[in-house]
Amino acid sequence: MIVEMDRGASEEQIQAVVSRAESYHFGVQLNRGTDKVVVAILGGDTSRVSTEVFAVLPGVASVTRIMRPYKLASREFHSRPSLVDVGGVVVGGERLVMIAGPCAVESREQLEQTADYVLSAGARIVRGGAYKPRTSPFSFQGLGDEGLDLLAELRSTRRVPVTSEIMDAYQLDAMVDAVDLLQVGARNMQNFTLLRAVGQSGKPCLLKRGLAATVTEWLQAADYLLASGGQVIMCERGIRTFEDSTRFTLDLSSVAVIKQNSHLPVIVDPSHAAGHHRLVPSLARAAVAAGADGLIVEVHPDPQNALSDSLQSLDFPSFGHLMQELDAIAKVLGRSF
Amino acid sequence: MIVEMDRGASEEQIQAVVSRAESYHFGVQLNRGTDKVVVAILGGDTSRVSTEVFAVLPGVASVTRIMRPYKLASREFHSRPSLVDVGGVVVGGERLVMIAGPCAVESREQLEQTADYVLSAGARIVRGGAYKPRTSPFSFQGLGDEGLDLLAELRSTRRVPVTSEIMDAYQLDAMVDAVDLLQVGARNMQNFTLLRAVGQSGKPCLLKRGLAATVTEWLQAADYLLASGGQVIMCERGIRTFEDSTRFTLDLSSVAVIKQNSHLPVIVDPSHAAGHHRLVPSLARAAVAAGADGLIVEVHPDPQNALSDSLQSLDFPSFGHLMQELDAIAKVLGRSF
Amino acid sequence: MIVEMDRGASEEQIQAVVSRAESYHFGVQLNRGTDKVVVAILGGDTSRVSTEVFAVLPGVASVTRIMRPYKLASREFHSRPSLVDVGGVVVGGERLVMIAGPCAVESREQLEQTADYVLSAGARIVRGGAYKPRTSPFSFQGLGDEGLDLLAELRSTRRVPVTSEIMDAYQLDAMVDAVDLLQVGARNMQNFTLLRAVGQSGKPCLLKRGLAATVTEWLQAADYLLASGGQVIMCERGIRTFEDSTRFTLDLSSVAVIKQNSHLPVIVDPSHAAGHHRLVPSLARAAVAAGADGLIVEVHPDPQNALSDSLQSLDFPSFGHLMQELDAIAKVLGRSF
Amino acid sequence: MIVEMDRGASEEQIQAVVSRAESYHFGVQLNRGTDKVVVAILGGDTSRVSTEVFAVLPGVASVTRIMRPYKLASREFHSRPSLVDVGGVVVGGERLVMIAGPCAVESREQLEQTADYVLSAGARIVRGGAYKPRTSPFSFQGLGDEGLDLLAELRSTRRVPVTSEIMDAYQLDAMVDAVDLLQVGARNMQNFTLLRAVGQSGKPCLLKRGLAATVTEWLQAADYLLASGGQVIMCERGIRTFEDSTRFTLDLSSVAVIKQNSHLPVIVDPSHAAGHHRLVPSLARAAVAAGADGLIVEVHPDPQNALSDSLQSLDFPSFGHLMQELDAIAKVLGRSF
Repeated sequence: MIVEMDRGASEEQIQAVVSRAESYHFGVQLNRGTDKVVVAILGGDTSRVSTEVFAVLPGVASVTRIMRPYKLASREFHSRPSLVDVGGVVVGGERLVMIAGPCAVESREQLEQTADYVLSAGARIVRGGAYKPRTSPFSFQGLGDEGLDLLAELRSTRRVPVTSEIMDAYQLDAMVDAVDLLQVGARNMQNFTLLRAVGQSGKPCLLKRGLAATVTEWLQAADYLLASGGQVIMCERGIRTFEDSTRFTLDLSSVAVIKQNSHLPVIVDPSHAAGHHRLVPSLARAAVAAGADGLIVEVHPDPQNALSDSLQSLDFPSFGHLMQELDAIAKVLGRSF
Repeated sequence: MIVEMDRGASEEQIQAVVSRAESYHFGVQLNRGTDKVVVAILGGDTSRVSTEVFAVLPGVASVTRIMRPYKLASREFHSRPSLVDVGGVVVGGERLVMIAGPCAVESREQLEQTADYVLSAGARIVRGGAYKPRTSPFSFQGLGDEGLDLLAELRSTRRVPVTSEIMDAYQLDAMVDAVDLLQVGARNMQNFTLLRAVGQSGKPCLLKRGLAATVTEWLQAADYLLASGGQVIMCERGIRTFEDSTRFTLDLSSVAVIKQNSHLPVIVDPSHAAGHHRLVPSLARAAVAAGADGLIVEVHPDPQNALSDSLQSLDFPSFGHLMQELDAIAKVLGRSF
Repeated sequence: MIVEMDRGASEEQIQAVVSRAESYHFGVQLNRGTDKVVVAILGGDTSRVSTEVFAVLPGVASVTRIMRPYKLASREFHSRPSLVDVGGVVVGGERLVMIAGPCAVESREQLEQTADYVLSAGARIVRGGAYKPRTSPFSFQGLGDEGLDLLAELRSTRRVPVTSEIMDAYQLDAMVDAVDLLQVGARNMQNFTLLRAVGQSGKPCLLKRGLAATVTEWLQAADYLLASGGQVIMCERGIRTFEDSTRFTLDLSSVAVIKQNSHLPVIVDPSHAAGHHRLVPSLARAAVAAGADGLIVEVHPDPQNALSDSLQSLDFPSFGHLMQELDAIAKVLGRSF
Repeated sequence: MIVEMDRGASEEQIQAVVSRAESYHFGVQLNRGTDKVVVAILGGDTSRVSTEVFAVLPGVASVTRIMRPYKLASREFHSRPSLVDVGGVVVGGERLVMIAGPCAVESREQLEQTADYVLSAGARIVRGGAYKPRTSPFSFQGLGDEGLDLLAELRSTRRVPVTSEIMDAYQLDAMVDAVDLLQVGARNMQNFTLLRAVGQSGKPCLLKRGLAATVTEWLQAADYLLASGGQVIMCERGIRTFEDSTRFTLDLSSVAVIKQNSHLPVIVDPSHAAGHHRLVPSLARAAVAAGADGLIVEVHPDPQNALSDSLQSLDFPSFGHLMQELDAIAKVLGRSF
């Protein structure tokens, strides 16, 4: 951290900064310029201390963090890419992973029909919502436990890994029994109680980016999971901006930023960002070209009659066609699905 | 809802829209323009149905909602301002309410000292965090149950209402016993599991605005609480924007927008928006002048040594001076603290 | 436009809305629901009238636009994709166009060396800044007229189309003589005086998206150019959001949104969005995969000593390697560079 | 500036950073931590050099600016508040200034009637648009030169300072003759050609904040004007965010931030931010309470028939009532209108 003192700060004020830094066992170096003093506070653990601790002292003009405020998710901490095993499917390696399925599990038939199709087209993990977070209390809230049972059954009959969203720590036991990958949704990215519980569960976690989270804050949330012993796959799904022709603004820059600063695998959810099935293929292709390790896409046998997210779900032919394009783009980058 | 058909949409496509609207028992009127057909879907309950239900049909160009997508929080539903009773203190009436206290409860002495000061200066509800949501897993996470006990003790010895943040439904029983007002934090505004639990608890709720939530979404979250039987006070605390000289951008327009569209009381938290104690008085005064029903402000006996949010906490003299200014501004508007 | 009346609006108020609509020769249909009246105002030219005209009338609850507020740029107005001829190079057809060159023209040698390299690697239009808009008045402001002369010379000796940014209408005559394509920068997207002048110049325009412009506002700006007789290529270059690990957030969704709503070609500038050369290849590949009609990329023979935008400029080997990847991705989509 | 080297950066790479800093005659201090080297680059003029200059060098992990990137607008450069004289009315002193008038000059009668009313109610400068920047090319674009003549006439007959927006440098001569204060609009805040011309004109400038500009960038734009010899009044008018119930999000924090970092006076435009006259009084009161030096407000004798911005214009009675509230709030802060 770099502490810039006010022009004219007293020696006593400078010493107070130095003393506080030393109380954390950090290294300290004073840089005396012509018109102001700058204190460099050095050490591998400065990422664990808030800048406030120094900013609040008298005579301090500003405090700037140099070390990133996350540690376990950082590439400096762990230089090789992490691989995450999801029920036998490896995420983060040369092979990309398509996770596909319905927004919400609606019935055994709907789930099986969708799963069978997406698996035949190249998907390797099946998604399906059991508990659904809905903006309105009057919307369909998912089948709940029944949906979870249907996922567990599919996982057993098709021998395929499945994933679903966990909304609250009390659902953890049931979820751990039923699925291979726990999704933490965008609205829960900073639900720290949930993060800790998921981290301790032994199941890998798909951590969706919060609507208003910077990449840095998202990696800090990953630190919560990693600190509790968890394994993490990052999932870009769009951020909230002023643009209103899409539901969210997919920030594909985050893929390269994460690859540069972190060892964690990163996948992309084009469905929730776009909000409309006509935009999904363009964004899905872009995500693969950007270097993502995989995708999570909503598919429904009959989108016009889906009980949720109907507008952004692909039908079977669109999904099949898309998989072919995605595989060809992956091959340009020396990868494949 | 207004459904705009594509230029050249077929009669069959138009009829499919009409049929779907009728299946919800909505009124339907066709507007045939020179170059396209517009279907008006009318009825008091259209706010409960997603626009997707129509947007996904073939031949539909766009669907626009006219009714706001919340109902119980709407002024159309309940025209007079709601008053919320917090342990005997009424929020939403002519008298404004100051809620003040430390960010986190650190000790009995720190809590009592702060409470005694802010009450003497005109505050009427005491705040103090027991469980703290922290961006980093390495930061001080609050005293937990011990903090809650100290709040309950203060409430009993000082006969003053107290409030604290609930982070997860499992904390509900302990919180209900200890506090008069449950705070739902910005990061949990769309934690629907938590909202339902709080709504059913019988305690009023201070609902902070999510960092990325529009006023409309925030009122939809209030609908979750109201639908479960709860009472709600809205709390503006700043939204996430590109501006980086403050932690968040306090959106004081939301005060007048909520007053216009809703019957719920609205207060303002200038401390978290500003992120720096030097900016708090300016924003606090502005909030009262904008017409807020109260404020929630962080105060600490020794901000330089606070364990959290030290930079944005006011010390006692600053708080005392601010209360005098706020009361004088309230009087200009025919109100008082 | 759809005008929603207040619950309990009087017949007189409804008639005032109808009369005002009729004064514009619009069609009007009344939809009388059980609890409120909705007035549909129909006609091809409603896009030219502001919603305020109705919103300001007494008894009006809200006004919603259905027709998009642009006309000439709309696909409804012109259903086939427009092709724009830039000095013999067609933008918007099956073949993608790479525009490359230095951020700023620094010398004849630097310009020629860069142009020769990028052309050999597959670029077909050369870019180079003569007048530079700089955030700080103390930064290098470009060579001005001398830079323009160097571009004109290159265009003549290499027989290649060139493009540069116009910052003010007074530069128009000099620019028209020197370049084949006029760039209007993000900060000038709503400089309407400049748009009209460029539209009337007879030269095609590369219209960069404003930092805070929705796709709709950007297409309205295109309407200014088209209404003055101009030809337009849209250029996505990132929007301002809260994310701070990149300079701007590249909104690649806009490519598909424009293709859906407009007939204009759209290209992408990954350099200004990323702000760092290490992120440029990932975003460039994503843009092509998303379906863009081309790219504009900054290249410099010695980025470490560039006088502006050094950090985001590619060196020659990186650019050459990127072109090969981009061409392979284009071929997946049945296109090529 | 603080240059953080990569872990394992070579001595040669560190020396390259030092040499480059020394080539600008900056002071340099090396801070050698246990795992990385941090180079502090010190000197009063570092604000004039881009961080890129160092970030582009090999072995550099990050570059952080400590000095703010503006100089002339900074309070460090000029510690006492600047007063700006607008035709005899001082902005920035203890007395607040109300600037009021119609959005656009529509006729002599409309301008005189409005001016006479607002002056009688306490305004001291009259505003009126002659050239209007409009999002759509089909909207009313202002009376142009005729509007300017009417303003000049009013200024002479009423002996009152007037202000209007300049959209392009070619309008400068006409504007300088007609008005006392040149407004630079939000969409032109980074039109550097215009800024330089206005700075050299000898007239003070009202610099509106750009829709996507941070406070820092806004103060950099002020530096353009100050560097050309101009005098500047800052004007907050709302930024672009995701919130859609208001046209823009008024960022009242910027008032206190500017007061802290700059010596320039700052006023607030609640009309353009709100977009609706019902929200204007709440925001105007908040602006005065926040500590603004004045306001600029749109007033019209008959808003329902205004040719532009009808929805956000106050009628006479609303304006008169507002002025009384504002004056009372100003008095709480020891000021007055």
